[in-house]
Amino acid sequence: MAQRPTAPRGRNPEQTGQAAWMATEKVNAELFTLTYGAIVRQVLHDYEDCVEDVNKKLDSMGFDIGCRLVEDFLAKTSTTRCGDFKETAEVVAKVGLRLFLGIGTRVGEWNPEGTECVITLDTNPLADFVELPEKYRDLSFSQMLCGVIRGALEMVSVRVTCEWARDALRGGDGYAIRLL
Amino acid sequence: MAQRPTAPRGRNPEQTGQAAWMATEKVNAELFTLTYGAIVRQVLHDYEDCVEDVNKKLDSMGFDIGCRLVEDFLAKTSTTRCGDFKETAEVVAKVGLRLFLGIGTRVGEWNPEGTECVITLDTNPLADFVELPEKYRDLSFSQMLCGVIRGALEMVSVRVTCEWARDALRGGDGYAIRLL
Repeated sequence: MAQRPTAPRGRNPEQTGQAAWMATEKVNAELFTLTYGAIVRQVLHDYEDCVEDVNKKLDSMGFDIGCRLVEDFLAKTSTTRCGDFKETAEVVAKVGLRLFLGIGTRVGEWNPEGTECVITLDTNPLADFVELPEKYRDLSFSQMLCGVIRGALEMVSVRVTCEWARDALRGGDGYAIRLL
Repeated sequence: MAQRPTAPRGRNPEQTGQAAWMATEKVNAELFTLTYGAIVRQVLHDYEDCVEDVNKKLDSMGFDIGCRLVEDFLAKTSTTRCGDFKETAEVVAKVGLRLFLGIGTRVGEWNPEGTECVITLDTNPLADFVELPEKYRDLSFSQMLCGVIRGALEMVSVRVTCEWARDALRGGDGYAIRLL
């Protein structure tokens, strides 16, 4: 089964760059959330609730999605090669997450070397309405998102580690992704 | 793991009815498409490519999603009980599919008794970019959508059969759902 990125449906051919992406088709976030929840449930079932394996699988599924998403993104937006890691983090946060998930983000908590930062999300559409029972306390429910970022950056030859720095489902204060 | 519908994030409390739903958060359709593709791949793997079982599973996953989606939809929109099956079909097509998938639809091909119709979709976001190899020729790739409609209607005590009348992935002319 192959999924190939193509020009989004119904796009005005005169629109270019980021404006075109902003105008592309959208689906209701709640439908997306419930669809994502169905994936997590299925993977939990497949791996017989072995949370460590589930986290890895979600990350790997996200990686594949990130690889596919980025090609069309680069082709259609005017995004140019990032000069340094700071710029990369800003593009992931302010362009990528905003365009694809429609959420606000901010980048901060830089280490002195400028090689590690934290992207705080205003909300996390993957985990809306979710409550995890105690037995899933180590489940990184939204791990797919880290995989998507990792996959997208890998495609532009930027190799990163991407993990949840704060995860409200695991008792954290909101949602934040560490990039290093 | 529980997912409970709540008021969508950031909604203006003064917005009511369908306008509020139109204004709710959206995610990029391509991200949704690729996420849905990841589900189908996973289920194909789980059921060792037994397409008949995969079709049933996708339908059943959709049913669960439809049940969850409809509660919030009814609570937040001004949708009232449909008078007859014709009205039900119009609401599914013109309100449900438009709001959730952001696509245009038309209802037609009624049987003389008014108990069966076909909803034609302008596009099918679940199947964008997808190409199926010959061994999956009986896969109803987008079957989850039929399940969603069936689940949503079941919650309002309307029991329907919902199936793909035309499926471009299986050689059909576009995408159309039969409701009866």
